[in-house]
Amino acid sequence: MRLDLNADMGESFGAYQLGQDALLMPSITSASVACGFHAGDPGVMRETVALARQHGVAVGAHPSFPDLVGFGRREMRATPREVEDFVVYQIGALAAVAAAAGTRLQHVKAHGALYNMAVRDATLADAIARATAAVDRSLILFGLPGSELIAAGQRAGLRTAREGFADRAYMKDGTLVPRTQPGAVIEDSVVVVSRAVSMARDRVVNTIDGSRIALEVETICVHGDTPGAAALASRIRAALVDAGVSVVPVGAASGVS
Amino acid sequence: MRLDLNADMGESFGAYQLGQDALLMPSITSASVACGFHAGDPGVMRETVALARQHGVAVGAHPSFPDLVGFGRREMRATPREVEDFVVYQIGALAAVAAAAGTRLQHVKAHGALYNMAVRDATLADAIARATAAVDRSLILFGLPGSELIAAGQRAGLRTAREGFADRAYMKDGTLVPRTQPGAVIEDSVVVVSRAVSMARDRVVNTIDGSRIALEVETICVHGDTPGAAALASRIRAALVDAGVSVVPVGAASGVS
Amino acid sequence: MRLDLNADMGESFGAYQLGQDALLMPSITSASVACGFHAGDPGVMRETVALARQHGVAVGAHPSFPDLVGFGRREMRATPREVEDFVVYQIGALAAVAAAAGTRLQHVKAHGALYNMAVRDATLADAIARATAAVDRSLILFGLPGSELIAAGQRAGLRTAREGFADRAYMKDGTLVPRTQPGAVIEDSVVVVSRAVSMARDRVVNTIDGSRIALEVETICVHGDTPGAAALASRIRAALVDAGVSVVPVGAASGVS
Amino acid sequence: MRLDLNADMGESFGAYQLGQDALLMPSITSASVACGFHAGDPGVMRETVALARQHGVAVGAHPSFPDLVGFGRREMRATPREVEDFVVYQIGALAAVAAAAGTRLQHVKAHGALYNMAVRDATLADAIARATAAVDRSLILFGLPGSELIAAGQRAGLRTAREGFADRAYMKDGTLVPRTQPGAVIEDSVVVVSRAVSMARDRVVNTIDGSRIALEVETICVHGDTPGAAALASRIRAALVDAGVSVVPVGAASGVS
Repeated sequence: MRLDLNADMGESFGAYQLGQDALLMPSITSASVACGFHAGDPGVMRETVALARQHGVAVGAHPSFPDLVGFGRREMRATPREVEDFVVYQIGALAAVAAAAGTRLQHVKAHGALYNMAVRDATLADAIARATAAVDRSLILFGLPGSELIAAGQRAGLRTAREGFADRAYMKDGTLVPRTQPGAVIEDSVVVVSRAVSMARDRVVNTIDGSRIALEVETICVHGDTPGAAALASRIRAALVDAGVSVVPVGAASGVS
Repeated sequence: MRLDLNADMGESFGAYQLGQDALLMPSITSASVACGFHAGDPGVMRETVALARQHGVAVGAHPSFPDLVGFGRREMRATPREVEDFVVYQIGALAAVAAAAGTRLQHVKAHGALYNMAVRDATLADAIARATAAVDRSLILFGLPGSELIAAGQRAGLRTAREGFADRAYMKDGTLVPRTQPGAVIEDSVVVVSRAVSMARDRVVNTIDGSRIALEVETICVHGDTPGAAALASRIRAALVDAGVSVVPVGAASGVS
Repeated sequence: MRLDLNADMGESFGAYQLGQDALLMPSITSASVACGFHAGDPGVMRETVALARQHGVAVGAHPSFPDLVGFGRREMRATPREVEDFVVYQIGALAAVAAAAGTRLQHVKAHGALYNMAVRDATLADAIARATAAVDRSLILFGLPGSELIAAGQRAGLRTAREGFADRAYMKDGTLVPRTQPGAVIEDSVVVVSRAVSMARDRVVNTIDGSRIALEVETICVHGDTPGAAALASRIRAALVDAGVSVVPVGAASGVS
Repeated sequence: MRLDLNADMGESFGAYQLGQDALLMPSITSASVACGFHAGDPGVMRETVALARQHGVAVGAHPSFPDLVGFGRREMRATPREVEDFVVYQIGALAAVAAAAGTRLQHVKAHGALYNMAVRDATLADAIARATAAVDRSLILFGLPGSELIAAGQRAGLRTAREGFADRAYMKDGTLVPRTQPGAVIEDSVVVVSRAVSMARDRVVNTIDGSRIALEVETICVHGDTPGAAALASRIRAALVDAGVSVVPVGAASGVS
């Protein structure tokens, strides 16, 4: 049993601070670093990669639509060709920052609206996967289990990592309850920790209607934008370790713990 | 005797067309491609790299200050650390575009105000050279002969390429006559072609005050933003070949022609 | 019988030239000036307003989604509140440029994806109309006849101007044939001129299936981005005048010609 | 005796929060609102103007160089013409936001590097003053006492407001001690409050070398970016009122308190 814990990182910009990177970094194993399109700037990217290295955290690109003022959360009708170009550019920018820090990228996780649209839009998902494979075939593509993004990654010959959310409610079909619905976000940290353990050890999750479904994930996302996020991440990691789960970067060689 | 002919390329942006890339590409051997900070966007970068590949032209990064509306021509008081970060980011973005096209970057040539400031500012020049070396030690750094940029490249352990301008007047000390002075730009194409041959074959250039000085350059810059630029570039290349000069990318292995 | 001839103007940006403003300006009566979100910059805006003034052309704002690299042509899922804020900002920026030139804005015409989405999206249309009315109740809101934008303008208490396209084919219901369909754009300039006269004098247009429908418009849009656009605009204006149509800015006092 | 208390406001951007606007607003009388070039976005501008109105605080534009990632703190070699265009655009954008909120702008205070460069650069100062006067002759131009900005405002026929800094050390010639020097920023809040009262009531300030000089100011700047800023501003205001100073917006009619 092994599991990766990932968080979005490096979402500050210029004079603007966002997130709790320094507090979260000790608890995670993979950092998805903003690349300047929705957040991040070249200096923030450098600092974030350096921080990840200090903590032995693997680094991945967190590409987005070009929408700084909207934080990449707005859908945009970009063509697949445009999306592919955007993603190549952003992965490359971060890959150079990583190279300058003496490391390499492990993964790619699309951000915000781009990630969400690629759950169901196979054409968009293929664009993201093609871009990733074109830059570096060894990159691991993150996505929701059962999403078009995971399917696209497989079509592109990429290794993929399915992502679970311990603090989000699930429908019976394994999709997330939309944030607009009541109960979509689970705020009781005891429950969140317990769900993380269930996902990692038992490969199951309880759904919002009280049933239990199988859920296969290689990584769990830890949100960094809520008060108490760092403490929660720390507790999740400790509970996983207690449960005998090896908490390691998804790209780490098998057997490493 | 060998010489590289370089031009700035890929300076279109979104709906905006600039330059005569398709017309110039057959005459040059190295393309310095804008990376999105002063010009260029991810799609333009992809198209430009593809065009260069079709013509066997080597590709380099053309990083700039972040100033799209000013086309990177305005001096900015960025710190060396900021400049280093900007340059790493831009090289990386283009390197990924190149990788996706199945090629690699050959060189780095700073753009506009960044290039000009780095002629005399050793700290800034070091920032550019450090960024280049940090991303890829095999990249060749372009700069004016005798400039701080060339010295910085050498300090950083990089191969450098000294750049001449056949259509610009020179002072007796080997520096360019500022564009604000009369006679700074040579418009007679016969003279320009002849000066290119002198630079390549005889390693000399006539100065604005009528003397002749030694000038060692590995590459000559061809401007693409004037009417007739493509025809002039074609004539320069033909005249160089006629004079027995091997016109090849600066990074090509010795003996290739 | 009177008619306004409008064109999109001021869509250059920094070093980038776009359109044929100087050639078109003598033929039109209203210029919709880009405000920096999809095109235009503060200097281009000043030059465009000055050019319009020289030709007695009324000036309006041409607000857009914030999408420079996409030229405002991409749909974005911005909230109505965001759209209202974007439009207020852009109208204000151009209003100040106009004030500095000693003139005032006449109208507001949304650009690209924003204009097209507001044809059918009443909520978005209301956001644009509210923004316009909030800045200056005397501004005239442009929109397609029968569109939600015109309805929203009326709800907001604004004067509206319905816009026709002499070079676009119409469906029997008065909507434009989508550009993706064959025959959507009419390229025969004789036909285009004749359609402009029909619209202005007879208040009718021939549809793509050969019928003739009533079409009430106060302004006709002249495209500036095609070769020959200026000559076509000049011929349209001359033909209108020959047909006894008074070609004046839509905001001009009645009876002026 | 009357005095204005001003602060920079509305420097959040998109998802990024900066400053303590809601806490500071009760203590100040004039808010200089960022206009989107170094900070602020159309939504933040609207919220900031609304907040100012709730507190009876006068609103002014806080224009900057176009440098979001550098927060407008970097010098840029823009031409006076470009600066004039930038300032017109930004004043206009905020003026429309103000109009939509049912109010008008009171003043213009340049931001960051633009403000600092205009202390000594008469050409740049004239560009800012010309832009301000071109948009609205009733706007009050803020600047350091004795600076070129104040002189330029007078040349442009504008009313001006000289600005003091209670938390900054002064040289004997009335200029500010540069931030790079020790003692430049005064951190003892008791001293800061006392200096504010001296400036307002006695028209004097103690210099860093222990002498006392005359200093005529109409407004004092309260910084919002330090911990405790709101409490300090509140104490300054209370001390001024206790000292018999009428704390009112600089543009308020005489005699109002």
